[in-house]
Amino acid sequence: MQFRDERDWEQFHNPKDLAVAISIEAAELLEAFLWKDAKEAKIEKVKEELADVLAYAILLGHHYNLDLEQVVRDKVLKNGEKYPVEKAKGSATKYNEL
Amino acid sequence: MQFRDERDWEQFHNPKDLAVAISIEAAELLEAFLWKDAKEAKIEKVKEELADVLAYAILLGHHYNLDLEQVVRDKVLKNGEKYPVEKAKGSATKYNEL
Amino acid sequence: MQFRDERDWEQFHNPKDLAVAISIEAAELLEAFLWKDAKEAKIEKVKEELADVLAYAILLGHHYNLDLEQVVRDKVLKNGEKYPVEKAKGSATKYNEL
Amino acid sequence: MQFRDERDWEQFHNPKDLAVAISIEAAELLEAFLWKDAKEAKIEKVKEELADVLAYAILLGHHYNLDLEQVVRDKVLKNGEKYPVEKAKGSATKYNEL
Repeated sequence: MQFRDERDWEQFHNPKDLAVAISIEAAELLEAFLWKDAKEAKIEKVKEELADVLAYAILLGHHYNLDLEQVVRDKVLKNGEKYPVEKAKGSATKYNEL
Repeated sequence: MQFRDERDWEQFHNPKDLAVAISIEAAELLEAFLWKDAKEAKIEKVKEELADVLAYAILLGHHYNLDLEQVVRDKVLKNGEKYPVEKAKGSATKYNEL
Repeated sequence: MQFRDERDWEQFHNPKDLAVAISIEAAELLEAFLWKDAKEAKIEKVKEELADVLAYAILLGHHYNLDLEQVVRDKVLKNGEKYPVEKAKGSATKYNEL
Repeated sequence: MQFRDERDWEQFHNPKDLAVAISIEAAELLEAFLWKDAKEAKIEKVKEELADVLAYAILLGHHYNLDLEQVVRDKVLKNGEKYPVEKAKGSATKYNEL
C-alpha cells in the first residue's frame, strides 16, 4: 500500500485492471515453465513472478475489503463439497464430470 | 494441504501444472470483469476466483518451501528500485520505458 | 513450419506447451491495454502480440491436423445455438445465465 | 461478424475486452491439458477452445483493420532475426538469453 501510495498509483488500480495484472503476472510465472520439465524452472524467476501475482491479489483484496485468509478458507470448504473425498480420491477429474 | 492430501492429489500437483492452474484461475477471475465496467463485477464471483488463485499460489509456494510473505516483501523492495518514486509518481509507464 | 524446422524446435512443441505459449502470448497482448483505456494501446504492440497468439494457434492446429477455418466456422454455428438472437440481443450475459 | 451483429454485440467488443476475452479463452484451452500429459487432452475440447481464441483474435484484428495473414508473416520474419538459426537451433532459450 505504501509502495503504491508513494507513487500515486491507486488511480490506475481499478479492480478490472488489477484482475488483468494478476493474469499477466500469472502468465509470466507460467513462462518459467515453458518448453521445460517442471524441475528445470529457475526458482528465482518463479519467486519473483509468484510475488507479483500475490502483490496484485492483495491489492485487489484490499479494494474490496476482503479478509483473504478467510476467503481462501471458505473456498477450500466449498471445494470440499464439490470434491468429496470418496469420489475425488486419486482422480484429476473435474467436479462436474465426477 | 489437508484438503489435498485427503484426496491424494499431490501426485498431480507438480509445479508446472500448479502454475498452469494459477493462470486458469486468474482467467476465471478476469471473467468476472469481461464486457463490464469494474463496478458491475459480482463480488461473490471475484471472491471465489481470487481464493482459487491464492490457493494454488500457496500450494506452489509450499512446493518450493517459500515463505510467501517474505517473497512478496522482497519483491516490493525490488520494485521500489525499478520504479523510483521521483520517476514513477503518477505514471503508468513500464519501468523499461521510464 | 519452415521457421520452426530450421531451428529444430518441433521437439519443444508438444501440444501442452503450445497451449501454454498461447496463454503467455495472450497475456502479452493484454499487457498492451493494462492501466489504460482501449484507445491508448499501442497498435504496434497489439499487432506483434496478436501475431504470436496466432502463430502458436496455427502450430497447435497443425499438430492435430485441424482445418482452422472449419473449426472456427463450426464453433460460430454452435455458439449460435448457445446464444439465440432473440435471447442474446444486446445482452452481455453468459449463456448459462440467459 | 454476422453472428456478432445479429446480437448487437459490437457495443461490448472494445479492443480491451476483446484482448481480455482472448486471454480467457486461451486459459480454457489450457484447461484441456491441466493435470495431464499432452496426449490425454480431449481433442474436442481443444478444438472448441482454440476456435474461441481464434474467433476473438479475428474480431480484434477486424477492429484495427489488420490483415492477419500479413501480421503473422511479418512477425515470423521478425522472430527470424531474434532467433537466428545458428544460435537458436535445438535450443529453447529465450532470445534475450541466447
